[in-house]
Amino acid sequence: MKKEIVIGIDIGGTNTDFAFVDNKGKCYLRNNIRTDKYPDIDTFLDKLCGELKNGVTSLKKKFTVISIGIGAPNGNFYTGNIQFAPNLKWKGSIPLVKMMKERMSLPVVLTNDANAAAYGEMIYGAAKGMKDFIVITLGTGLGSGIVINGEMVYGHDGFAGELGHTTVIPNGRGCGCGKKGCLETYASATGIVRTMCEILNMRKEESLIRKKELTKLTSQDIYIAAKKGDMLALEAFEITGKYVGMKLADAVAFSSPEAIILFGGLAKAGNFILDPVKKYMEQNLLSIYKNKVKLLLSDLNNENAAILGAAAIGWKQADKK
Amino acid sequence: MKKEIVIGIDIGGTNTDFAFVDNKGKCYLRNNIRTDKYPDIDTFLDKLCGELKNGVTSLKKKFTVISIGIGAPNGNFYTGNIQFAPNLKWKGSIPLVKMMKERMSLPVVLTNDANAAAYGEMIYGAAKGMKDFIVITLGTGLGSGIVINGEMVYGHDGFAGELGHTTVIPNGRGCGCGKKGCLETYASATGIVRTMCEILNMRKEESLIRKKELTKLTSQDIYIAAKKGDMLALEAFEITGKYVGMKLADAVAFSSPEAIILFGGLAKAGNFILDPVKKYMEQNLLSIYKNKVKLLLSDLNNENAAILGAAAIGWKQADKK
Repeated sequence: MKKEIVIGIDIGGTNTDFAFVDNKGKCYLRNNIRTDKYPDIDTFLDKLCGELKNGVTSLKKKFTVISIGIGAPNGNFYTGNIQFAPNLKWKGSIPLVKMMKERMSLPVVLTNDANAAAYGEMIYGAAKGMKDFIVITLGTGLGSGIVINGEMVYGHDGFAGELGHTTVIPNGRGCGCGKKGCLETYASATGIVRTMCEILNMRKEESLIRKKELTKLTSQDIYIAAKKGDMLALEAFEITGKYVGMKLADAVAFSSPEAIILFGGLAKAGNFILDPVKKYMEQNLLSIYKNKVKLLLSDLNNENAAILGAAAIGWKQADKK
Repeated sequence: MKKEIVIGIDIGGTNTDFAFVDNKGKCYLRNNIRTDKYPDIDTFLDKLCGELKNGVTSLKKKFTVISIGIGAPNGNFYTGNIQFAPNLKWKGSIPLVKMMKERMSLPVVLTNDANAAAYGEMIYGAAKGMKDFIVITLGTGLGSGIVINGEMVYGHDGFAGELGHTTVIPNGRGCGCGKKGCLETYASATGIVRTMCEILNMRKEESLIRKKELTKLTSQDIYIAAKKGDMLALEAFEITGKYVGMKLADAVAFSSPEAIILFGGLAKAGNFILDPVKKYMEQNLLSIYKNKVKLLLSDLNNENAAILGAAAIGWKQADKK
């Protein structure tokens, strides 16, 4: 008998990664195309669906494809549209689910990348068996996927889970969204670089980072310096973790989750980020929550994490997991 | 044929109010006993259940009582216990549901007073037909009941919804919970009194409030002064609304609700509180949420609101609404 399989697609600003994923999380025919080479959505989807159809054909003796799950920036679960995504070239509202269904004749489900990450953790990763947890994606920005009573929180209009745009410092740093003091301006790959630059300006101590060209500084550079014991780089992680921890305490007071899982580039810094997040979260928790909420790092295979998340919503859609 | 009815009980620090409530929200045999007169929980429940049994008897020709819903400070839905409620004389963890079932031989369900308020709004009030909304109770403290996908958010352990203890001003006012800068220290009947005292200290302008003895000042006095156009009293409402609005913007980014409903003593100040809350909430919202979230005042009959909330969880428990 043929096994069932889903297609997981992770649409990013630069690359679109995809694979056929079985119910154990094993990926087949993993591949990618350049998103930014296709300013026109139709041309992009023609190319993508061409690749996918080739895959369906080459797997058809062993597998039946039952659905397609897509994670994309600003992907809206309810409408099936990508809506005004700042990092994508396709402007306005793109009816992605409708367009994919027309091409592939399969059930298609879309959500944003952070919600996809949360599904990935629930089906394949650190949140297996949990009904109440939050995934925080620490990448270029800060995203969040919130699961309550075993269900993703989409909210009234599909836009829930924007913890990156809650306020951590009233009238603080300017944010791309137009507000000030948003958590994501401090707690993200770009946020920690801003913090590092501020520290270097304010302080006189030596630092490995001082040898770098500041306009090209990345969070990876700060991580490497921290690993070598650089005090100012460690301070940048401490400050970043402090702001994440403060806001996670707010999130706990909201939904009292079993666990909070850190996911994405900055989470790969491991204990450099985890330790200060835990310290400041616990400091800001009401006593009834103290020492109860598990703070975990993503348990997904890094390379395939985003594809697994997208595949997980495909399985969820097909109600097979 | 006899109609079904539930018992709604609202346990407060001073009074315990109760009534028999039909599915339209009509209250029968409304009555109360003094909570604070019974330092022993057994004696309290003997008195309360005596009253309830008399009620059951006098209504039995017309009604069948099918369940009991109770709202109480720190009432935990999962455990059925009242846990360490600061305003009640019964200390430690009280197995209220178990003790009521033994006395009444009826299904009993318990939740905290803010969750009961949210159920009340959902079944009888401003949130009828809504699946995603938040109720904020502005009383002595600030409580919250959060409904997502039509279900109350209890969280992993039954303690979700403590928005009163999220941080609005880092290192701000001391809170009874031991933390600093909690929303409830600014946005509650006691919080607005603290704000009013600060304003009177800092400013030289005349105010009706200056004639009051400050140690006896209540939020009601500030409301009365505001109605008379007192500028400093109006400023106290503006500041209170500002902090509520700022944190409601965070809550919207979390769960993207259809509506937020203000409930309780301070909410009775109407537009004096509603207008600044709306202004500062909108100022702090991400553009995707702006001008979409309804900000409403409670639609429940004031006198019976808490009983209706408790009754509503009784109906929900019996799965009849």
